Amino acid sequence: MKINSNPVRGTRDIMPQEMELRDNLQQKILDVYRSHGFERIETPIIENIDLLMGSDGGENLKMLFTILKRGEKLKIHEESTVSELCDIGLRYDLTLPLSRFYANNKNNLQYPFKAIQIDSVYRAERPQKGRFRSFKQCDIDIIGEESEGAEIELIHTTAKALNEIGFKNFVVRINDRRILSSMITSSGFTPEEVASISIILDKFDKIGQSGVTKELIDKGHDENNVNALLYDFTNLSEENLFNITIDQKISKALTRVIDAVRELSKEEYTIKFDPTLVRGMGYYTGQIFEISYGPYGFSIAGGGRYDDMIGNISKESIPAVGFSIGFERIVTILLEEMSMNQDNEKKVAILYYPEDDIVQVIKKADELRKLGYNMSMFVGKKKLAKQINGLKEANYKYFMVFGKDEEVKLID
Amino acid sequence: MKINSNPVRGTRDIMPQEMELRDNLQQKILDVYRSHGFERIETPIIENIDLLMGSDGGENLKMLFTILKRGEKLKIHEESTVSELCDIGLRYDLTLPLSRFYANNKNNLQYPFKAIQIDSVYRAERPQKGRFRSFKQCDIDIIGEESEGAEIELIHTTAKALNEIGFKNFVVRINDRRILSSMITSSGFTPEEVASISIILDKFDKIGQSGVTKELIDKGHDENNVNALLYDFTNLSEENLFNITIDQKISKALTRVIDAVRELSKEEYTIKFDPTLVRGMGYYTGQIFEISYGPYGFSIAGGGRYDDMIGNISKESIPAVGFSIGFERIVTILLEEMSMNQDNEKKVAILYYPEDDIVQVIKKADELRKLGYNMSMFVGKKKLAKQINGLKEANYKYFMVFGKDEEVKLID
Repeated sequence: MKINSNPVRGTRDIMPQEMELRDNLQQKILDVYRSHGFERIETPIIENIDLLMGSDGGENLKMLFTILKRGEKLKIHEESTVSELCDIGLRYDLTLPLSRFYANNKNNLQYPFKAIQIDSVYRAERPQKGRFRSFKQCDIDIIGEESEGAEIELIHTTAKALNEIGFKNFVVRINDRRILSSMITSSGFTPEEVASISIILDKFDKIGQSGVTKELIDKGHDENNVNALLYDFTNLSEENLFNITIDQKISKALTRVIDAVRELSKEEYTIKFDPTLVRGMGYYTGQIFEISYGPYGFSIAGGGRYDDMIGNISKESIPAVGFSIGFERIVTILLEEMSMNQDNEKKVAILYYPEDDIVQVIKKADELRKLGYNMSMFVGKKKLAKQINGLKEANYKYFMVFGKDEEVKLID
Repeated sequence: MKINSNPVRGTRDIMPQEMELRDNLQQKILDVYRSHGFERIETPIIENIDLLMGSDGGENLKMLFTILKRGEKLKIHEESTVSELCDIGLRYDLTLPLSRFYANNKNNLQYPFKAIQIDSVYRAERPQKGRFRSFKQCDIDIIGEESEGAEIELIHTTAKALNEIGFKNFVVRINDRRILSSMITSSGFTPEEVASISIILDKFDKIGQSGVTKELIDKGHDENNVNALLYDFTNLSEENLFNITIDQKISKALTRVIDAVRELSKEEYTIKFDPTLVRGMGYYTGQIFEISYGPYGFSIAGGGRYDDMIGNISKESIPAVGFSIGFERIVTILLEEMSMNQDNEKKVAILYYPEDDIVQVIKKADELRKLGYNMSMFVGKKKLAKQINGLKEANYKYFMVFGKDEEVKLID
């Protein structure tokens, strides 16, 4: 019998060489996060369906993977709904689980709490190049700090992690959800329309000004309002941030973050106000940010303030803000831009034959391990030259034949 | 609104202190594995339902988490079965995904291939103390080596990983599935009965000889056959391994593994033949092994040879053997036996006030990070003594108040 050996559509297998790069990157990011006082936690990949479906996840709620109830709890009728058939689902991000975690464990956590999460999330997206249904995120969040000091710390720490793994000259784009809302309502729309209009504005990157204008008008919105909105949307800048009709505190806080980060960046990266930044999630309440890099049409990190989410789960309202590095995107760029820079200096194959005393072979390998080599044992083949050629292809730098070679030999 | 903030039943949140221990253990295990020539790979947590349900997973197939089809593919009828409603499921182990991975990628992998997998698996077990529905395993497998050299390497490497994280005096128990089958058939049972009888024998640890005897007789098996089987089952030992009616090659290979491991163990652990070792999975074809430690009623590692599994997925039959450390069990024991031995030597809180220049605070923190400290910034409170007490509880060793203290101060 031969059955389908491909991974599930939209997911992928990770090969050894990429895995070494990933482990290396993850360790460096984690070290930077920890050195900035953040602490790693972990939550399960599954969450209760009520929590997932009741969350403000925007488009992500349409992409939930939901898990069938088991045993007697499963009752199937012609008209069963997903939430009747399923009791749990896979998380679509790390922010909702963190908020639940915090609500569940706050009595045993420091206040403010600075969290690290490095874990995978799952979205049933239409599979397309570079988009996966399972992908890893590296998140840091500060829970319990309402001042924009938290935003500054998060941007600074994330930028340092990116620097540490070799990224320079990236652009931090920043906006505030409240500026966006104010622009929309002051163009003549109602507060109830803000969410649906934001979703369309979010497509500005992809479909441009004419595309957004057309879609808004097609949806039945007044053409004058649409034009007024698009004018503001494309003309607002850091310089006229104080001329718009919002609480000056909002502009002031945004300026404070931009100025502080600019000074801290030491010109290794830049930060700029971007009024066209929207971000998909419904749960943001204040500043939002993304990082762009080079010619890539996707952002490599994103985040923002979500002051209401924990209050929706817990009785207590608690301010929170987070920043997430898109690990898969980082890996994609590094695989494209850099040679794999594989560290094979330590890889040694030790060949032995069935008639050798395997205990002596292992003892010899253990000796060399103590010198720092990664020793891999293989049964020797009759065609030794061919076998050594295979080892070279598998990135081995040295080999030795047990009982024949006293020392490791360079494979050339 | 207040909603349930507990993690999904049978799963748990992991707190920062435990997470540090886990990261530390995982890194040590991974380093030992890599130094023995194994290479890490990763597969998605979801697999196609046909692969999962068609596998030889024994009792685990009853504990599958299955994921509802989405969009138009989902058609619900009164009599819909799980495999009609669901297209994918969560993996219940790492061996089946590895076999699929190998079948899918073999042209790009070394032969033999030595794999590392450190990842979580999911089983909808009835929740009970110490058993979780999501748990991590640390697996090494050798694919493409038919000699028992592979078993010796796996046991040696796993034992070294356990030594490295502080485990000594554990017991490796070893058996061969073919000895078990032979005992069953030579006691008068049919080959078709081997699988169902093995499942009952596997309960020997828990319900003892009388329990197993009773259950076999209750199932309608002949009392004489049952007694003959139980006699062999409890009396077979390393000494009379060559007196039973099996291919002498099987006894010889088992003896070779036991002797080699005994010599390599340097008395840091022991290995013994255990005819009562069964292991739950249906897919084992040869030697099987488990590691017991101290008074704990569960094994901390388990594995065996599964020469047919890859052949069931791929056209080609390829020998394979693996050994898996139960990460959660290791962590449970270490948390119980050892003090957390938390490395807080590096933890420093830097307190600042809203009127301070946050850029200068961050620059000061960055300076100290370069000296190796983990610096965490907090807004200072009016009740400083109380705040410092809170830091102590959160395991901070040092603090400093920006603009006041020149150097870090010990929290005592």
